[in-house]
Amino acid sequence: MKQGNLYILSAPSGAGKSSLISALLQRSQGQEMMVSVSHTTRAPRPGEEDGVHYYFVSEQAFESLIEQGAFLEYARVFGGHYYGTSLPAIEQNLARGIDVFLDIDWQGAQQIRRRIPGVKSIFILPPSLTELERRLIGRGQDSAQIIAERMSKAMAEISHYDEYDYVVINDDFERALGDLQHILAAERLSLAYQQRQNADLIHQLLAK
Amino acid sequence: MKQGNLYILSAPSGAGKSSLISALLQRSQGQEMMVSVSHTTRAPRPGEEDGVHYYFVSEQAFESLIEQGAFLEYARVFGGHYYGTSLPAIEQNLARGIDVFLDIDWQGAQQIRRRIPGVKSIFILPPSLTELERRLIGRGQDSAQIIAERMSKAMAEISHYDEYDYVVINDDFERALGDLQHILAAERLSLAYQQRQNADLIHQLLAK
Repeated sequence: MKQGNLYILSAPSGAGKSSLISALLQRSQGQEMMVSVSHTTRAPRPGEEDGVHYYFVSEQAFESLIEQGAFLEYARVFGGHYYGTSLPAIEQNLARGIDVFLDIDWQGAQQIRRRIPGVKSIFILPPSLTELERRLIGRGQDSAQIIAERMSKAMAEISHYDEYDYVVINDDFERALGDLQHILAAERLSLAYQQRQNADLIHQLLAK
Repeated sequence: MKQGNLYILSAPSGAGKSSLISALLQRSQGQEMMVSVSHTTRAPRPGEEDGVHYYFVSEQAFESLIEQGAFLEYARVFGGHYYGTSLPAIEQNLARGIDVFLDIDWQGAQQIRRRIPGVKSIFILPPSLTELERRLIGRGQDSAQIIAERMSKAMAEISHYDEYDYVVINDDFERALGDLQHILAAERLSLAYQQRQNADLIHQLLAK
């Protein structure tokens, strides 16, 4: 039975997570993988497509999905918009053998671990504090308050790094990408995955 | 603090484990790794060196080591000779940052899991029953009884494959070698390993 693996990927903003995920998908070499598409009640921004960037739904539809227990995790953020990760969509893709990445923060990760105890999670760290600050300060166009908020959010995220199974340090992009590829490959060699993927061979060997 | 990882590697005879371990050591690319050297009370065979192939010790010395609790696992095999894996030697190498492989059977693996609950273990499977039989029959110079015994021992070993963390199928040598390399690399990205290996960076990031 084909079955993909589900991964949680978290990182403070400025650690390079988005670029790493993009590169991972581009160079997936036959192994199908995708980032889970979230549901949201906020309006699409220019260029955003329904079903690609988000599933854009009404507040009523979102709350009805909550009642059905469809969300692995969801949150209402400042501004009142809902964001959530729908389980049925993920399960469909996993059942097609596709590895699915959940690009979420530590709070979403905690919710998902409660629902799916075996889910593997990866935390991406920046190479140094100096580099993280440089990336968060950006081009110097933001107010001191905005930068301070950004920094404080990044620090809060980092403080949860030890709830994750794997830690990847993004000091060198290619190396960090290779690290992610090693993790995905190793997880496909885990006992449970091999029992599903090579059931015929194992059955044949054990039947002797 | 540098600290290597400890691995159990098991396989039925005929799965290609020895060739895979040799190639793994030869192409270790800077990451130090070694196969643990066992203690035995049997006499060295021509060409065997003490401390390289085995630590050759007297029965009295071996039994004294048993009393000291020095062995992670040991067994007395047919013929009355002892074989065992000494913990102090392994710990010394792990503390130098070297990954250590224990090349042992399912019985030794069970003993070691009881002593070191977190130890990671890898089982290597042959690509098919036909291929396994072909390898175990060998060049047709052995008696039917010897072949039957060899086959029965291989089947007993295979029946324990599901006690291992990872399963590697040796259908293609280079691919199986790559699989082992992925596992070792991923384990070096595990939370516990990264906390030891990158303690300074993590400390710096959390102190902010």
